[in-house]
Amino acid sequence: MNIDERNAIYNQAKEWVFTAGKNIRAKIDDPLVIDTKSNPNDLVTTMDKETEAYFVEKINQEYPEHHIIGEEGYGDKLTTLAGTVWIIDPIDGTMNFVHQKRNFAISVGIYHEGIGEIGLIYDVMNDILYHAKRNEGAYKNEAKLAPLKQDVKFEEAIIGMNHFWLCENRLVDEKVMQQFVRKIRGTRTYGSAALEFAYVAEGIVDGYLTMNLAPWDIAAGIVIVNEVGGVTTDIAGVTLSMLEKNSVFTCNASLQHEIIQFIEKGRK
Amino acid sequence: MNIDERNAIYNQAKEWVFTAGKNIRAKIDDPLVIDTKSNPNDLVTTMDKETEAYFVEKINQEYPEHHIIGEEGYGDKLTTLAGTVWIIDPIDGTMNFVHQKRNFAISVGIYHEGIGEIGLIYDVMNDILYHAKRNEGAYKNEAKLAPLKQDVKFEEAIIGMNHFWLCENRLVDEKVMQQFVRKIRGTRTYGSAALEFAYVAEGIVDGYLTMNLAPWDIAAGIVIVNEVGGVTTDIAGVTLSMLEKNSVFTCNASLQHEIIQFIEKGRK
Repeated sequence: MNIDERNAIYNQAKEWVFTAGKNIRAKIDDPLVIDTKSNPNDLVTTMDKETEAYFVEKINQEYPEHHIIGEEGYGDKLTTLAGTVWIIDPIDGTMNFVHQKRNFAISVGIYHEGIGEIGLIYDVMNDILYHAKRNEGAYKNEAKLAPLKQDVKFEEAIIGMNHFWLCENRLVDEKVMQQFVRKIRGTRTYGSAALEFAYVAEGIVDGYLTMNLAPWDIAAGIVIVNEVGGVTTDIAGVTLSMLEKNSVFTCNASLQHEIIQFIEKGRK
Repeated sequence: MNIDERNAIYNQAKEWVFTAGKNIRAKIDDPLVIDTKSNPNDLVTTMDKETEAYFVEKINQEYPEHHIIGEEGYGDKLTTLAGTVWIIDPIDGTMNFVHQKRNFAISVGIYHEGIGEIGLIYDVMNDILYHAKRNEGAYKNEAKLAPLKQDVKFEEAIIGMNHFWLCENRLVDEKVMQQFVRKIRGTRTYGSAALEFAYVAEGIVDGYLTMNLAPWDIAAGIVIVNEVGGVTTDIAGVTLSMLEKNSVFTCNASLQHEIIQFIEKGRK
């Protein structure tokens, strides 16, 4: 993918994201049909589906040779990341969308031959776009995001994570995670993986730790966090696959190793 | 306190809150002197102190007969709530203020003979004022907040709480709280008690549960949550004292009893 091609795709993707966001804002008070997926708290609405269908239609029209991985299943069933792949979560943070009518995002990552080239995370209700192209820096609307601080101490870190880490779970001894939250400065739980990636990129949380995310939750975030010097892996420090679910840890690079070592003590 | 008197105090308090907020916004990128108080994560900055001193000076000038309880100690040492008492947190969510430069609030509750008459919670960076006078409803800026839903199910509740509930603690068996987070729909952690009260009042979280808060963290929130039909007690369901620290549970009334009963199973 050359730079001109990438710029054209980036501009096009941005335009579609803004249009989709505008549509969501216009309908934010409309009645919703809410279904559940893998469990009673895994929500999906007509708006998730409508938004994904919009992207898929546009991409298929404009870039018929591109592939699509989407949360709601309108995309393709891919077994490789060959070519150009759009990885889309039409509404990341559907629980927030349903219960709060804010604090959710449209997440679009565009990968070429397996490499993340473009990341777009759109905080729809606040009209804030976090965006990046590989090697060109990350932005919050028009403002370039600063490189992450090089000297965050473990004891002063604020980490985004949900509460299940502290309950018995299949990944880590919960006692170790209980020690972890006592060691760091603070925890936050915002309910949108895409926004938590954006907050790591902004430096307002120092890391975000999550148990089981799909490619569409993280594809855009990884590109954006990379551009400010952050690192994203699974909780064992291994590079993530964009074709399956993973545990995910995105973090300020100055902390990542230390935190992974801490978690290692309890990793199952 | 008659209605005219109360309206005058309310208008005055609002003006001071906006002025203090404007000052904080103007200085948001200035270097901060950060100290710690009860523990390394209990932060206080020059801006907390400056803001409280501003309120105390204004109140002493305008209402020399009123009393003040303030987080940073510029107020009075009170042993009763007789008369009119201003209960002030100049920056609620100081950790967010320091690390995020947003997601903090000015909280002002005004009590008369022990009864909460006025509550003001100002989300400074978003310029959103949550406010209420007793028996006159609660507002988010100019919009009246709707009464809380009467039919939220336990299994569909979103509860604001920090992660320490799931670690060994002096209040509740952590195993019971681990069951609790598995039973509800979701948890959120925002790092500002005042804002979490405001979110309960808005209905975007259904309850907020916290271990050890001081009067200034909750005085305004209680007044605002009351006005939309919410209930605030300690975690045993007992009315809170405005003269000491308490565990705090503010909640949609339709859920409150059920959640207190659940926690009761593990209460120490």
